[in-house]
Amino acid sequence: MTPEEFRAWGKQVVDWIADYQAGIERYPVRSSVAPGEIRAALPAHPPERGEPFDAVLADLDRVLLPGITHWQHPDFYAYFPANASGPAILGDLLSSGLGVQGMVWATSPACTELETVVVDWLAELLGLPGHVRTDAAGGGVIQDSASSAALVACLAALHRASGGRAATEGITRRYALYVSAHTHSSLERAARMAGIGADNVRVVDVDPATQAMDPEHLAALLAADRAAGVVPALVCATVGTTSTTAIDPVPAIGRICREHGVWLHVDGAYAGVAAVCPELRWVLDGVGEFADSFCTNPHKWLLTNFDCSVLWMADRAPLVAALSILPEYLRNAATASGEVIDYRDWQVPLGRRFRALKLWAVLRWYGAEGLRAHIRRTVALAQEFAALVRADERFEVLEPHPLGLVCFRPLGPDADGRALAGMEELNASGALYLTHTKVDGRVVLRFAIGSPRTERRHVLAAWQRIRRALT
Amino acid sequence: MTPEEFRAWGKQVVDWIADYQAGIERYPVRSSVAPGEIRAALPAHPPERGEPFDAVLADLDRVLLPGITHWQHPDFYAYFPANASGPAILGDLLSSGLGVQGMVWATSPACTELETVVVDWLAELLGLPGHVRTDAAGGGVIQDSASSAALVACLAALHRASGGRAATEGITRRYALYVSAHTHSSLERAARMAGIGADNVRVVDVDPATQAMDPEHLAALLAADRAAGVVPALVCATVGTTSTTAIDPVPAIGRICREHGVWLHVDGAYAGVAAVCPELRWVLDGVGEFADSFCTNPHKWLLTNFDCSVLWMADRAPLVAALSILPEYLRNAATASGEVIDYRDWQVPLGRRFRALKLWAVLRWYGAEGLRAHIRRTVALAQEFAALVRADERFEVLEPHPLGLVCFRPLGPDADGRALAGMEELNASGALYLTHTKVDGRVVLRFAIGSPRTERRHVLAAWQRIRRALT
Ligand SMILES: Cc1ncc(COP(=O)(O)O)c(C=O)c1O
Ligand SMILES: Cc1ncc(COP(=O)(O)O)c(C=O)c1O
Repeated sequence: MTPEEFRAWGKQVVDWIADYQAGIERYPVRSSVAPGEIRAALPAHPPERGEPFDAVLADLDRVLLPGITHWQHPDFYAYFPANASGPAILGDLLSSGLGVQGMVWATSPACTELETVVVDWLAELLGLPGHVRTDAAGGGVIQDSASSAALVACLAALHRASGGRAATEGITRRYALYVSAHTHSSLERAARMAGIGADNVRVVDVDPATQAMDPEHLAALLAADRAAGVVPALVCATVGTTSTTAIDPVPAIGRICREHGVWLHVDGAYAGVAAVCPELRWVLDGVGEFADSFCTNPHKWLLTNFDCSVLWMADRAPLVAALSILPEYLRNAATASGEVIDYRDWQVPLGRRFRALKLWAVLRWYGAEGLRAHIRRTVALAQEFAALVRADERFEVLEPHPLGLVCFRPLGPDADGRALAGMEELNASGALYLTHTKVDGRVVLRFAIGSPRTERRHVLAAWQRIRRALT
Repeated sequence: MTPEEFRAWGKQVVDWIADYQAGIERYPVRSSVAPGEIRAALPAHPPERGEPFDAVLADLDRVLLPGITHWQHPDFYAYFPANASGPAILGDLLSSGLGVQGMVWATSPACTELETVVVDWLAELLGLPGHVRTDAAGGGVIQDSASSAALVACLAALHRASGGRAATEGITRRYALYVSAHTHSSLERAARMAGIGADNVRVVDVDPATQAMDPEHLAALLAADRAAGVVPALVCATVGTTSTTAIDPVPAIGRICREHGVWLHVDGAYAGVAAVCPELRWVLDGVGEFADSFCTNPHKWLLTNFDCSVLWMADRAPLVAALSILPEYLRNAATASGEVIDYRDWQVPLGRRFRALKLWAVLRWYGAEGLRAHIRRTVALAQEFAALVRADERFEVLEPHPLGLVCFRPLGPDADGRALAGMEELNASGALYLTHTKVDGRVVLRFAIGSPRTERRHVLAAWQRIRRALT
C-alpha cells in the first residue's frame, strides 16, 4: 500500500470509526450470534489475489459487526469498562504508523524515554512516592495486562526470596503465594506459570462485611508456612477486587509483609486510577509505603484503549535480575553503559510496541483535570444508580461501593435464579449488558459504569429495565 | 473527544503517517540521541489542563522524532524487519476503534472467530497439516510475541510431562529444556519464568558448517538426563536462528523427541512465514509431522505490524489445561457449552485486543500472491547483496543464506575490530542501520532485508557504503 493509498483508505477508516462512535447506540450491546456463526460466514480459504480495502470494510459491516459485543456502548455495564477514547486510539495509530520496536533503549530511544516520562507522570497524578519513579531505584513500565504484571512481580519476588537461585536452579523448594477468595485469578495463574503451583496459593479469609482480606489470618498463614519450611514468596493485596471492588487493608497487610520480609504486590487493576482524584486517593493508602510492586490499568477506567497496564516497582533490581539475558545480537553501547533502561528486562515478551504514545496522548488531551472529571462523573452516576436500587425495597445493594461499580441483588424467593434469569433476559434484549458474580455463595449482579459515553439518561433507563426484568 | 473531533484529528494523524511514510528517507535510520536527551526535552510534570491534539503532533515532530530509530526506513537492515504495512496499520486502527476485549468468546464472538479463521488461513498458506487447525484438535492463536509463545509452549509441555501435576504442585522435580547456542534467548527465559531454571537448559552442539543443531548430541543429552532422573520437558528447534537463520534439522530432531516422548517446539519466528512460497516450504520440513507447537511472527517478515506472533499446537488440550481457571465472574453459557474457544486459556494475559483484524487485513489486501511476491522480492535482493559481497575478496559471506538475511565479515588483520568499528561508523552516519552477532567467537555483520520499501537501489548503495567503511 503506497503512502497515497494509505492516506485515502486511512481517511475512510477514520470516517468508519467516527460513524461507529456516533451511531453506536444503534447496535445491541451484546452480540447474539451462536457459536460458529461468524466463522461460517467467512471464506474457508484465504484469498489468492489481493482485494481493495473496501472489501475489508464491507465484510466488517456485514459479517463481523453482528458478532461484536460493543464494549464502547454507553449501556455496557459488564465486567469493568475498557474505554477506547479518541486520543488513545490516535496515539495507538501513531504507534502503528511509526512501527518502531522498543525492546531495548537503542532500538528507538524515544520509545523507552517517553514511557519513563508518562509512567512518572502517572505516578505523580496518583500520588505515588518518589522512589517508584524511573529516575529513582524503582520505576514504572507499561505491560499488556495486569495478568502479565502479576507474573513478572511474582518472578521478581521469587528472585528475591531465593537469593537469585530461582533464575538459575529453578524452583527447588516450596514457595507460597497469598491471596483472598476475591483476588483476581491472574494471581493463581501467575503461581502456576512461575512453577509455584496452585496448591501453594493460600487463600486468606475475608471480612464478611467488606470482602476485604483479613490481615490477622494472613499473619497466621505466613507463620504456619514458615514453620513448615515453606517460603512465602508474594502476598497480593487488591485495591478494588474484580467481583465487588473490595479494598484490602494495604497498610496492615504491608506491615505484616515487612515483618516477614515477603514481597507485597498490590493489584489495583481497575481501582488504582481513581487516585487521580484527591478525594479518592485513600484507595492507595499504604501502597507507596509498603508495596514492592503495584499495578493499575489505564486500559480499564482511564480512557486508554487496551492494552495498557502500568506496573511500578519500589526497586527494579530484582525484576531486571530475574529477567535479563544479554545475547550477542542485542549488545550495544547504550546497554553496556548502564545509563539506559532496556524494558525487555521488565516484561515477558522481548519485542514491544510504542504503547507510551497512547497514554501520553490521553494525559495531554484530558489533562489531570479531565481525568479527574471523568472519574468523578462515573462515580457520581454509580452513586445515583445505587441510591435508586436502595430505594426499592425489593432489592439489596452491597455496601460499600465507593467507585464506579454497584453490586446488587433482588430479594425474595429464588433470588439467585431470578437474578440470573433476569440478567440473561436483559442481556439478550441488547438494551444493556451486565454480568454477575457470587458473594458468600449468592448471586450478585454487577453494574459497572465507566464509559465517557454513559450519561445519566442511560443509567436511569437501565434501572427501569432492570427493575422490570427482576421483579 | 467527540466523534466529530475524532474524525478531524484522525484525518490529520492519517496525513501525518502518510507524509512520514512518503518522506521517511529524509531521516537518519538510527537515532543519534544520547541517553536522557528525549526525557530532558519533555515536561517534568503532567499537564493540569487538556491540550488540543496538535500539541501532541507538534511534540512528536519536535521532541520525539529525533529519538526515533526508523524501523520502516528502506535502509533498516538491523535485527529482523518489523514491517508496518498500510493494511496492517488500518486493521490495527479498526481494532482500537472497535475497542473490544476478546478474553473469552462471549465478550465479542467475532474477535475469537475471526482469529480462528485467519490462523487457519495462515496455516493453509504455510502448508501446515490439518490437525493444527482450530476446527481440529490443535489450533492457532495470536500471541504478542514469540517469547510469550515459547513460554506458553513450555507450560503446556510441563503440563504433559508432569501428568498435570505442574499446575497444582508446581515444579517439584528437575525438568530440562534443550536448545542450541543459537536458539533465541526467549527459550532460556521461558525456562527461568516457568521455574525450570537456566541451569537446566541444555545447550546442544551445532554443526560448525551450518550452525544447525546436532540431533545426535541432542539424543545423547536426553538419554543422559533421563538416566540421571531429570525429566526432559521441551526441545526447541529453530527454523531460522536469530544470528544467521540457521535451520535446525526438524525431522531428525522430531524423531528423537517422539522416541523420548518430549515436547517439540519449533521456533520459526522470522523464517516460518517464508513457507508461503512453495519453493521455500522446505524450511518447515518436519514441522507438520513432529512439532507439538510451532510459532512464526507475521510481525517480522509478513507485513503485519507488531504485535502479531502466531502459535499453533498439534493438540491444544495440555495448553488449555495448564492455563485455564474459571472464576465466577467469567462464567457464561457459551463457555459452559464447550462449543467455543476462550483464547484467554491460550496465553499469559487475560485481556486481549482484536489482533486478528490486522492479520486479516494483510491477508486480504496482499492475497497469497502478494505475500509470496514480497518474500520472493526480498530474498532475491538478499541473494544479490550476497553475490556482491562474495565477489569482493576482502570479504567472506557465511553460507548458506537462503532467506532475507546475509551474514558476512571483512577478512584480514583485526577483522573483528574493523567490523565493529565500521558498523558503528555506518550506523552513526544515519545512512543505514545494521547489527552484528558472533559466530564461533568471531564478529559477523548481519544485513537483513525485508521491507517492502527496500529497493535494489538501496541495497546497491548500502553495499558501496559498507565496502568503503570496512576496507
Ligand atoms: C483486580 C483485577 N486484577 C487483574 C485483572 C486482569 O486484568 P488484565 O486483563 O489486564 O490482565 C482484572 C480484570 O478485570 C481485575 O479486575
Ligand atoms: C528465532 C527467534 N525467536 C524468537 C524471537 C523473539 O521474538 P519476539 O520479539 O516476538 O518475542 C526472535 C526475534 O528476533 C527470533 O529471531
